[in-house]
Amino acid sequence: MSRIIKKTSKKAGLAPGTLVHIGDKKADRVRLRLIDYDADHLLETDLKSAEECLKIKGSPTVSWINVDGLHDINVIEQIGKNFSIHPLILEDIVHTGQRPKLEVFDEFLFIVVKMLSYGRNQEINAEQLSLIVGPNLVISFQEKEGDVFKGVRERIRKGKGRIRKMGSDYLCYALLDAIVDNYFEALEGLGEEIEELEEELVTDPTHSTLQEIHKLRGDIIFLRRSVWPLREVINELTRGDFVQISNETEIYYRDVYDHTIQVMDTVETCRDIISGMLDMYLSSISNKMNEVMKVLTIIATIFIPITFVAGVYGMNFKYMPELEWQWGYLAAWVIIVSIAAAMVVYFKKKNWL
Amino acid sequence: MSRIIKKTSKKAGLAPGTLVHIGDKKADRVRLRLIDYDADHLLETDLKSAEECLKIKGSPTVSWINVDGLHDINVIEQIGKNFSIHPLILEDIVHTGQRPKLEVFDEFLFIVVKMLSYGRNQEINAEQLSLIVGPNLVISFQEKEGDVFKGVRERIRKGKGRIRKMGSDYLCYALLDAIVDNYFEALEGLGEEIEELEEELVTDPTHSTLQEIHKLRGDIIFLRRSVWPLREVINELTRGDFVQISNETEIYYRDVYDHTIQVMDTVETCRDIISGMLDMYLSSISNKMNEVMKVLTIIATIFIPITFVAGVYGMNFKYMPELEWQWGYLAAWVIIVSIAAAMVVYFKKKNWL
Amino acid sequence: MSRIIKKTSKKAGLAPGTLVHIGDKKADRVRLRLIDYDADHLLETDLKSAEECLKIKGSPTVSWINVDGLHDINVIEQIGKNFSIHPLILEDIVHTGQRPKLEVFDEFLFIVVKMLSYGRNQEINAEQLSLIVGPNLVISFQEKEGDVFKGVRERIRKGKGRIRKMGSDYLCYALLDAIVDNYFEALEGLGEEIEELEEELVTDPTHSTLQEIHKLRGDIIFLRRSVWPLREVINELTRGDFVQISNETEIYYRDVYDHTIQVMDTVETCRDIISGMLDMYLSSISNKMNEVMKVLTIIATIFIPITFVAGVYGMNFKYMPELEWQWGYLAAWVIIVSIAAAMVVYFKKKNWL
Amino acid sequence: MSRIIKKTSKKAGLAPGTLVHIGDKKADRVRLRLIDYDADHLLETDLKSAEECLKIKGSPTVSWINVDGLHDINVIEQIGKNFSIHPLILEDIVHTGQRPKLEVFDEFLFIVVKMLSYGRNQEINAEQLSLIVGPNLVISFQEKEGDVFKGVRERIRKGKGRIRKMGSDYLCYALLDAIVDNYFEALEGLGEEIEELEEELVTDPTHSTLQEIHKLRGDIIFLRRSVWPLREVINELTRGDFVQISNETEIYYRDVYDHTIQVMDTVETCRDIISGMLDMYLSSISNKMNEVMKVLTIIATIFIPITFVAGVYGMNFKYMPELEWQWGYLAAWVIIVSIAAAMVVYFKKKNWL
Amino acid sequence: MSRIIKKTSKKAGLAPGTLVHIGDKKADRVRLRLIDYDADHLLETDLKSAEECLKIKGSPTVSWINVDGLHDINVIEQIGKNFSIHPLILEDIVHTGQRPKLEVFDEFLFIVVKMLSYGRNQEINAEQLSLIVGPNLVISFQEKEGDVFKGVRERIRKGKGRIRKMGSDYLCYALLDAIVDNYFEALEGLGEEIEELEEELVTDPTHSTLQEIHKLRGDIIFLRRSVWPLREVINELTRGDFVQISNETEIYYRDVYDHTIQVMDTVETCRDIISGMLDMYLSSISNKMNEVMKVLTIIATIFIPITFVAGVYGMNFKYMPELEWQWGYLAAWVIIVSIAAAMVVYFKKKNWL
Repeated sequence: MSRIIKKTSKKAGLAPGTLVHIGDKKADRVRLRLIDYDADHLLETDLKSAEECLKIKGSPTVSWINVDGLHDINVIEQIGKNFSIHPLILEDIVHTGQRPKLEVFDEFLFIVVKMLSYGRNQEINAEQLSLIVGPNLVISFQEKEGDVFKGVRERIRKGKGRIRKMGSDYLCYALLDAIVDNYFEALEGLGEEIEELEEELVTDPTHSTLQEIHKLRGDIIFLRRSVWPLREVINELTRGDFVQISNETEIYYRDVYDHTIQVMDTVETCRDIISGMLDMYLSSISNKMNEVMKVLTIIATIFIPITFVAGVYGMNFKYMPELEWQWGYLAAWVIIVSIAAAMVVYFKKKNWL
Repeated sequence: MSRIIKKTSKKAGLAPGTLVHIGDKKADRVRLRLIDYDADHLLETDLKSAEECLKIKGSPTVSWINVDGLHDINVIEQIGKNFSIHPLILEDIVHTGQRPKLEVFDEFLFIVVKMLSYGRNQEINAEQLSLIVGPNLVISFQEKEGDVFKGVRERIRKGKGRIRKMGSDYLCYALLDAIVDNYFEALEGLGEEIEELEEELVTDPTHSTLQEIHKLRGDIIFLRRSVWPLREVINELTRGDFVQISNETEIYYRDVYDHTIQVMDTVETCRDIISGMLDMYLSSISNKMNEVMKVLTIIATIFIPITFVAGVYGMNFKYMPELEWQWGYLAAWVIIVSIAAAMVVYFKKKNWL
Repeated sequence: MSRIIKKTSKKAGLAPGTLVHIGDKKADRVRLRLIDYDADHLLETDLKSAEECLKIKGSPTVSWINVDGLHDINVIEQIGKNFSIHPLILEDIVHTGQRPKLEVFDEFLFIVVKMLSYGRNQEINAEQLSLIVGPNLVISFQEKEGDVFKGVRERIRKGKGRIRKMGSDYLCYALLDAIVDNYFEALEGLGEEIEELEEELVTDPTHSTLQEIHKLRGDIIFLRRSVWPLREVINELTRGDFVQISNETEIYYRDVYDHTIQVMDTVETCRDIISGMLDMYLSSISNKMNEVMKVLTIIATIFIPITFVAGVYGMNFKYMPELEWQWGYLAAWVIIVSIAAAMVVYFKKKNWL
Repeated sequence: MSRIIKKTSKKAGLAPGTLVHIGDKKADRVRLRLIDYDADHLLETDLKSAEECLKIKGSPTVSWINVDGLHDINVIEQIGKNFSIHPLILEDIVHTGQRPKLEVFDEFLFIVVKMLSYGRNQEINAEQLSLIVGPNLVISFQEKEGDVFKGVRERIRKGKGRIRKMGSDYLCYALLDAIVDNYFEALEGLGEEIEELEEELVTDPTHSTLQEIHKLRGDIIFLRRSVWPLREVINELTRGDFVQISNETEIYYRDVYDHTIQVMDTVETCRDIISGMLDMYLSSISNKMNEVMKVLTIIATIFIPITFVAGVYGMNFKYMPELEWQWGYLAAWVIIVSIAAAMVVYFKKKNWL
Repeated sequence: MSRIIKKTSKKAGLAPGTLVHIGDKKADRVRLRLIDYDADHLLETDLKSAEECLKIKGSPTVSWINVDGLHDINVIEQIGKNFSIHPLILEDIVHTGQRPKLEVFDEFLFIVVKMLSYGRNQEINAEQLSLIVGPNLVISFQEKEGDVFKGVRERIRKGKGRIRKMGSDYLCYALLDAIVDNYFEALEGLGEEIEELEEELVTDPTHSTLQEIHKLRGDIIFLRRSVWPLREVINELTRGDFVQISNETEIYYRDVYDHTIQVMDTVETCRDIISGMLDMYLSSISNKMNEVMKVLTIIATIFIPITFVAGVYGMNFKYMPELEWQWGYLAAWVIIVSIAAAMVVYFKKKNWL
């Protein structure tokens, strides 16, 4: 249920801009990691306190501060003070029930997106990622440490690709691209589940098939909720004339936008397929019931009449001439077999056998 | 039903602008409460009559008049006269079947929204709130006394946050924010109901589950009706260039707009989930019926044929050689057991056992 | 069916602008009523012929000509000539299968709307109303005499409200408002039917419940068809810069627009509710069938095996040792009771009892 | 199936602009009919060859060339050459699988629409009509001779209405109007079918009812496919500033647009009604099944227990005291009747009887 | 499943612009075919390496390079270098999971579309086609060799039509037209399948009918995914003011756009029809079950009561007066036949026989 709505009752009645962490505490401690680079130079270090951030403020190199863990309000507040971020923004960062969105300020862009990962138990986990993108500065806020950005970090370290030569807008793109790539992984996982289910549907659908379909449907609803607004965010980034994003980087944003469209397209296709699977399931159940009914009907309609015949000659009337006949018993069998045969012929004609 | 449409027959044929209170009388008496404040000074008092409002007209401090109870037409009319509010507006205020809307006038904004609360019996109650927002003036009309605005009042009293330093536009925002926060509470309530129902659906769905689903669906339809137009109202407040709203406050309106979007998003998700639950329920019923049918079929198809065998040897024909045989009875049992065994094997093969 | 499409075959092949009355003849004779008024003076009279209209042409007072009955083509044609109305417009007036619409001409506005009333047999009746709105002139064409406009007429007579002080645009508003008010009445009627049905659905749904749902659904489809285009018409009246509508009256049109939105909103809600009721009905039927099946299955699976036991000891084999035993009969009962008990335990476990 | 897609395989790989007739050959020979008229003069004649068209080229009178039959590529090509029509246009004329559309060229408008007629066997037939509308020139291409335009021809001959006084734009309007009038006829036919079906649904729905619903649904899908793009075409004609259409004629185009909207509206209503009928049908089937089950259950559950009682006293145990009792037989009947009565009471309580 | 989503895990973490072939390797080797032509001259040759492309760069004749097979990254990279194509574009070319799209650059247009073919086993195969369209240059990338473009090649060779006289924009059109023509073939195939299924549905629907419907539905979902974005691409080509497309060619693009709309329209119609077929299927199953139930019920309700009668007279009570009567046996038969007859009459009345 927490997938649908986060408990926000703690916040009721508080003044706007009051920081309250909403969401599960997923990390033990807050970790601040700084990567500072330009084409020629690279510095990677852990910051001990939020105050240290100030050192890199205004430096001409690109600085990427990654915050893992959002439960320590003081740290977030300190960072906010350092870079003069509006309290309402800080509030959104620590409230993990945000919808993906983009807000534009004079000095920086504020981006909220959802990171999805496909867990071992076939469940989809979501984490909120907030980005502050200013000139030569990117601050990323994650709920817990993760390895989604490992690739980006590697590329910065090794100076692979063009990342070291470009600015904070390109770094922001690289992070968003990494996140969207992860969506594909989740979709691949779901795709495999769908494939298995389709197999199961054709061979032997059971009640657990239904629950599996229900679960997949929930996953898709959840995915759509993250992807649709994400698309809007990235579309705006592609179109908008933001001073924070250079013309040179725009083609990259268009590329990540394309990927988002692909994700959305696949999600919609999955939705159509799953709704078709439910129909298939229901029809299969109907079919099975039909078959059960047929078996019952065939057995019952063959035996009920002949049992009646046997019943008749089991009566104890004194004067029952048939009982005395020499061939009476044989005649009874002839009647019984004829009735049964007639029934079988009838069912053959009806195509039930 | 009164949730769908309010009885308006009393009004038929009356001239437009004639005040008639439409809706349940939820309060015993009308209560007028005035809070008058600026950064340095605060006055909180109950007004004895609508005429007293005139005192604060035109004062440089922010005045918030809160009216609890709409059934006394005279009070409303007097207030209308005091602040020269158009009769059609007054008509809307006392007619509680309004759709949320925003109307813009030269001197003030007129806002109608719905306040929702989640009652103890898991029902959603709605109340109409009308706001008149002018320079240094907010008049709020509620159907009955309630504690939704307690937080706002507290903040004004204690001078917490920035509320005392800002104008009537910020007060209006604070009120709307309090209302939208209440929506989250209603959603949390519904979310819990949905969670319980999903549990029930998996373990043991009964007819009352269906009625529960139906009830939830009605609640969601009701919520959507309040939230969609609310979104439009707040969106317009965010976008519009209203003289009544200062640039400084706009970011707050954007924040409350964000919350409305979140509410709407959650409502839509709930709708999807509930429609999925109905499918689940129907499938469960089908499954159960299938199981019932199988039990019947298995028992019937095993016993009907062997009962026939017993019937045959219960016949009273004079010449039935089998009856005379020494091992006839045993042979009959052999036949009976073989038939039963064959049936069991058949059902095993069919996977019904 | 005539609700879906009016027979128009009579018209095939005729030149455009040829007047043919399409629809049921609802009135015996055509009645022309003139109300001529300004703030100080009032004249109310029945006109004997369409030619008499010419008298009031061009007078500075507001003239309202109400035509009841559309089947007399000559009258309509004469009025058309008097006020130089385009033949295509006259064609639309007498063809009662129009969709609500607004057409703008230099001299006047042409408005077609549907008047709805909720009949005693819970059916919704529709009548076409056409309005010609020019400077100081309103001509209204109704299919038959009715009392929808009684309130308006009263207000004119008694000089209540502002109607006598304002022009033909306000009169047009007053008529539209009366019509939309009538929609609420129809909705209240439907609302009560829905309420009763929901009650019935929960307690004891029968086949007639289904037909009732089907009927309501048809009513809602019919209502939507009238309301959607009506909304467009009134919206255009609100937005458009028509010389025929003064700025002062615009707020009234906005008010009636608001009402139309409320009607539409309620119609859509009813639609959602009715579609939910159908699902409820189908589930109830499934549930009932399930219950029937369970009863059958319980009785059958308890008695079929024990009847077999009785059958076995009804066989007439010569050598059946059990039959000779002193306690044989008792033993048979023990077996029978054990089997029945086992079955009951099984059903208890299955939760069927 | 040819309703869904026309075989176009013949065309694969051909250069664009190559004329190939796609569709059934509905006419034996191609017939070219010329009507040339102005207010004072009228010439009506059959043309022997396409070359003869050239005579009327550039004449100040309005010329209407009607081509019945599209299978003779040479004729079409010759006409194309005479009036310098682009090969792609000619290709569209002979390919009868077009969607209704409007194409605008400097010299003329090219319009494709579908003519619908309601056949005797309750089927809807469609024919493609292409129109070339230039100054003083209308060329219409039909698949076969028909009498849809009889009314227009009559009006031209008799000089009725304003048709003789106006230009080719009015003629084009008159043709489109005749076509849309035919749509109403098709709708009336469908309307009657729907009415009959609704009757059948309430009284005695059978499997053929279902097939009838399915057929109607197909018809409606087919109608929508023709009507939606037709609406767009006529809407464009109404809005566009085409030199080919004079201001004076615009009001007529608006009138035919209105009719198209009515057609569309009715089609959508029919769709809603038909989808409601399917639900009704399915519910009826469920209801019937329920009733069948109840009868079975009542009979079975009354007789199965009492048959068991009879079975018990049919057993042949030596020591069965009851058998020896004087009132044993009567007692057995008492037991039997009591059981049956108990069952009947139970069913009464369950409301099944 | 690969129809829903291509495995992209290989790419995770790589820098953007890194070429990785995603998709099945459908061709053994990469084949580069060059056709270089203008009105007077024609050169057709296979290129041995990607470097050879450079020869034709900048020549005034139209050059069409067709690349069959995408798995050799080096070849693609070399071509990219030759014509300075952005690495992100190359990445899209070799990643066959693209959605159809159009990207506009200063020097050329980049178009991705899907080629569909209808296989022998009634499956729809898709292949990705990428086009680079520059001045006098078209580069087409196919996944494997195919004969879709045979017609275009023939026309170039034989100088048929206007293709030799026109530029690369016309060539691009010809290729797109060939692809859209192939869509019609796929639709014809599906159309035939639908026709067969409708036949089957009416005569004898089985479980395989359902699977067939499910399969068709999947095909239609797949088709829609390719056609909708294709439509957008071609629409943009029609509207956009691209320097790469001359005014003269625009009418041809409008023609291919028309075809795309027809494809889409047919796809949507198929979708509607298939969803109707599912309803038909479900109703048929219900009907069948109903019939089965009726047979069971008729047989059971006739024989169960009379079997009871036989059972009664099979009881062994000492004092059963009826057994001693002379006409007892006959009387029993009279009772039995009466009961059976009463039942038959009942069923006749119920219309079950």
